[in-house]
Amino acid sequence: MVRFAPALYDRPGLEGVRRRQIVRVLEAALEAVDPREAVRRFVRREGETLWVNGRPYDLTKIERVVVVGAGKAGAPMAQAVEEVLGGRIAAGWVNVKYAHTAPTEHVHIHEAGHPIPDEAGVWGAEEIARLLGQAGPRDLVICLISGGGSALMPLPVEGVTLADLQALTDALLRAGANIVEINTIRKHLDRLKGGKLAAMTSAPLIALILSDVVGNPLDAIASGPTVPDETTFEGACEILQRYGLWEGAPASIRRYLEAGRSGQAAENPKPGDALFERVQNVIVASNDLAAQAAERAAQALGFHTVLLTTFVEGEAREVAKVFVALAKEELASGRPLPRPACLIAGGETTVTVRGRGKGGRNQEMALAGAIQMAGLRDAALVCLATDGTDGPTDAAGALVDGQTLERARALGLDARAHLAENNAYPFFAALGDLLLTGPTNTNVNDLTFVFVW
Amino acid sequence: MVRFAPALYDRPGLEGVRRRQIVRVLEAALEAVDPREAVRRFVRREGETLWVNGRPYDLTKIERVVVVGAGKAGAPMAQAVEEVLGGRIAAGWVNVKYAHTAPTEHVHIHEAGHPIPDEAGVWGAEEIARLLGQAGPRDLVICLISGGGSALMPLPVEGVTLADLQALTDALLRAGANIVEINTIRKHLDRLKGGKLAAMTSAPLIALILSDVVGNPLDAIASGPTVPDETTFEGACEILQRYGLWEGAPASIRRYLEAGRSGQAAENPKPGDALFERVQNVIVASNDLAAQAAERAAQALGFHTVLLTTFVEGEAREVAKVFVALAKEELASGRPLPRPACLIAGGETTVTVRGRGKGGRNQEMALAGAIQMAGLRDAALVCLATDGTDGPTDAAGALVDGQTLERARALGLDARAHLAENNAYPFFAALGDLLLTGPTNTNVNDLTFVFVW
Repeated sequence: MVRFAPALYDRPGLEGVRRRQIVRVLEAALEAVDPREAVRRFVRREGETLWVNGRPYDLTKIERVVVVGAGKAGAPMAQAVEEVLGGRIAAGWVNVKYAHTAPTEHVHIHEAGHPIPDEAGVWGAEEIARLLGQAGPRDLVICLISGGGSALMPLPVEGVTLADLQALTDALLRAGANIVEINTIRKHLDRLKGGKLAAMTSAPLIALILSDVVGNPLDAIASGPTVPDETTFEGACEILQRYGLWEGAPASIRRYLEAGRSGQAAENPKPGDALFERVQNVIVASNDLAAQAAERAAQALGFHTVLLTTFVEGEAREVAKVFVALAKEELASGRPLPRPACLIAGGETTVTVRGRGKGGRNQEMALAGAIQMAGLRDAALVCLATDGTDGPTDAAGALVDGQTLERARALGLDARAHLAENNAYPFFAALGDLLLTGPTNTNVNDLTFVFVW
Repeated sequence: MVRFAPALYDRPGLEGVRRRQIVRVLEAALEAVDPREAVRRFVRREGETLWVNGRPYDLTKIERVVVVGAGKAGAPMAQAVEEVLGGRIAAGWVNVKYAHTAPTEHVHIHEAGHPIPDEAGVWGAEEIARLLGQAGPRDLVICLISGGGSALMPLPVEGVTLADLQALTDALLRAGANIVEINTIRKHLDRLKGGKLAAMTSAPLIALILSDVVGNPLDAIASGPTVPDETTFEGACEILQRYGLWEGAPASIRRYLEAGRSGQAAENPKPGDALFERVQNVIVASNDLAAQAAERAAQALGFHTVLLTTFVEGEAREVAKVFVALAKEELASGRPLPRPACLIAGGETTVTVRGRGKGGRNQEMALAGAIQMAGLRDAALVCLATDGTDGPTDAAGALVDGQTLERARALGLDARAHLAENNAYPFFAALGDLLLTGPTNTNVNDLTFVFVW
C-alpha cells in the first residue's frame, strides 16, 4: 500500500486537515491501480470456479494454467495470480525490466532491457512463445501485460535483428513518425505483437492489462499482443515510403515486408477473427480506474466531484492555466459544482525543456499553477504521476495553493525563475510540497486534481 | 441582431443540421451581450419608476438625469438608455473610440483615441467631469462603462501630461509590470479612475458596465471609475521603485505621487466609504452572461450542458488540447455529461506569434484542436471572439470537427504547416469554416464550445 511522506500533510490547523483529505484521495487512486490489488480486484476464485471480470472459468475442466506476460508491473501482477491460483499454475514466464522483480513461486520472473530491448528480452520472448505453443484447448493461458511490455517482449521475425529494428525505429522518430505509425511497423516485424501472441496458442486466453496509454487503446498497449490488428503490411510499407525510409531500411526488413505485402507472410489477425472468441481482454488498471477511485474517495470525504476527462494532453505549464481557471470559477460562482468540490482529470502532459533544472511534467504543471493561482484562498491544485517518479526525480508531483508563492518568497524562492529553468523539484523540495511515495510499481499516467473548499 | 454568414451552416444533411444548432447557440450568446440589448435587459421603466437590476428609482423625485461614460460600446449603450428615458435625460456625454458612433438624441457621443489616449479624450473627460460636478443629490447620474473606457476617458492630475503617462506606461510594460501594477499607477495619476468619477458628484449614480476583463473585477474594468480602490499612493511609489523606474519617471509624476504619499493629495475612495452607498454598479454584459445565454440555448436544443469556467487563459494551441480531451472523454465514456453534450468555457487565450501568417487566438485554438481531434466522429470544437474580430482579421473564430483535417487535405491544405505559421485564417477561409459576423459592437472576451452528439 502506497503511503505519502508525512511532511506533505503533517501541518497544523486547517492546512493539515485539507492536506490529509488530499492525501486520502491520492492514496485511494494509487491503491486502485496497484498491480497486485488491481489483478485481485478482477480475478478471484470460488472453489473450482475462476471469476475474471464477471466471466466464469471452470477449473475442473482446465488441465494446465500457464502464465505469461511482459511489462514493468509483471512481477506483482504474477504474485497476485499466484495468490489466486497457487499450485494450479503449471508453468509461467513473465519478462520484466531489470530490477523490477519480486518473489514468486510458480511463475518465472525474467529480467530484460527497457526502454531499449535487448537479447535477454528476446530469449524471454522465445520462452513465452514456447509455453504458448505447448498450451492447448484444454489449458488456460493468463497473459499479464503492463507498461513497457512492447520493449520487454521483443521477438523479431525471421532474419531481422534487434539492431535492425532499433535503427529503423530511430530513423522513424527522427523523421517525425507518430507512435501509431511506428507501432504499425513494429507489429509487422515481430512474432508476438499485433495479436500474434494470442494466435500462437490454441488455449483460451485471459489477458490482464495494466494500461499506461492515454485512452486505453488495446491495440497500442504493449503493441496489442492479444487483440486484433487493423494495420497491414501494405500500410507498413507505405509509412516507410512516406518518410523516405524504404530505400535506407535494412534489407532484411524490406524483404520481410515485401513478402508480407505479396501474401507470402501471414497478416496479423484482424477484427472478427474467430481466434479472439477464446480471448478475454481485461483492463485491470488504467487512468480511468484510478480517477474513478479518487472520485469515490473524494465523495466519501464530502466533496462534490466531477471526472472531467482522462485524455489530457498539452504543454504542462499551459494546461495548468486551464485547471486554475476551473478553480477560479468554483471560487467565483460555485460552478460547475457546489463546494466543497473536487475536479479530477487524467492524461499525460508534456514539457518542452528549455532550462537546465530538475523536475517533471507534474511538478512543472504544479509550479505554473502556483503562479497562476497566487492569492486564491480555499483552493489547491495537485499533480500526480501514478508511477511515483515524475520525470527524472524521486517525487510523484506536487501540491500547490494560493499561498505557495508567498511561502516561497519568504524562503527567497522565485517561482517564475524556477519555471523558466524547468526547475520545479528544488522549489517544491524547499517548501516540503513534493508528493513523495517512492516507486508505486504501477503506471497509469498522471492525475490532476482541483480541490476547492 | 448579429447573424452568422450562411456559408458556415448552409450544408446538406446532418452536417448542416448540426451546424445550424451551433450557430443558434452562438447567436444566443452574442445577443445576450449586445450592448443595447444588455442595457435594456437590466434597465426598464414602469411609469415613473426606473428599475435597474431590481432596484427602483422614483423618477418623480429626480430632477435631472445625466448620462456620462466611456468605452467602445458607449454609443449603443447610450441609445438603449435613451430608449428607456428619452426626454428625461437632461444632459449626456459619452466618450467613444473614433468611428464607433451611433445616432443619439440627448446624449452627446464624443470620439477620441484608443488604445493610445489623446487630447480629444482629455477634452471629453473634462466635459464629463463638468457634468458630474453639476449633478446634485436630487439628480441621477447614469454612467456607461465598456471596454477601452480607461484610455477613452483620460484626465491626468494637475501638472501631468498624457505624454508623461504614456512614457511611464511604456516603461512599465517593458520592465514586465503586470496590469494590476500598471492600473495602480494609473488610478493615482488620474482624476476619474479608481473610484473618483463617483466621488466627483453628489448625485446617486448607476454604473452600467459591459465587462471585457476576465472574471469581471470591477476595479479593473476601465480602471474602476465608480468602485472603491484598495491600492494606495504608497503602493504606486513602491511599484515604480521595484522596477527601477522611480528615478527616470517624469518629475511631474514623482512630485504628484510624493504629495499623495505624504497626505497632500487625497487618496482614492476606499471600500466602506459612505459615498458608495449611493452608487449601484451593474454588470450588464460579461463573458459569464454570454456563456449562460449560450447554455440556455443549448439546453433548449436538447443538449446536456456544463459551464466549466469563464477564466480560461493560456497558449491557444495548448488550451485547445484540453478541450479536445473533454470531447474524447465524452465520446469514450459519456462523461462528464450524457450525450448530446455541450461544454462551455470562457476567457481569453494568448498566441505566441512565431510565424508570419494571418489569424487570431480563436482561429489558432480551432486549428490546433482540428489536428488533435482528427478522425473523431460526432464532436465539434467552436472558438468565438465575441467582438466579431479575432486578432487582426474580419472573422470571429472558427468551427472544427474530426473531419476538418481530411477536408483540408483534399484541398491541399496542411494544417500543421498553417499552425506553425500562425496562419489559421486562410486555412479556415478555404474550408468555409470561419465564423463571420461582422463587428458585434461588444466585447466580453472569448467563448469556447465543445459539442458532442
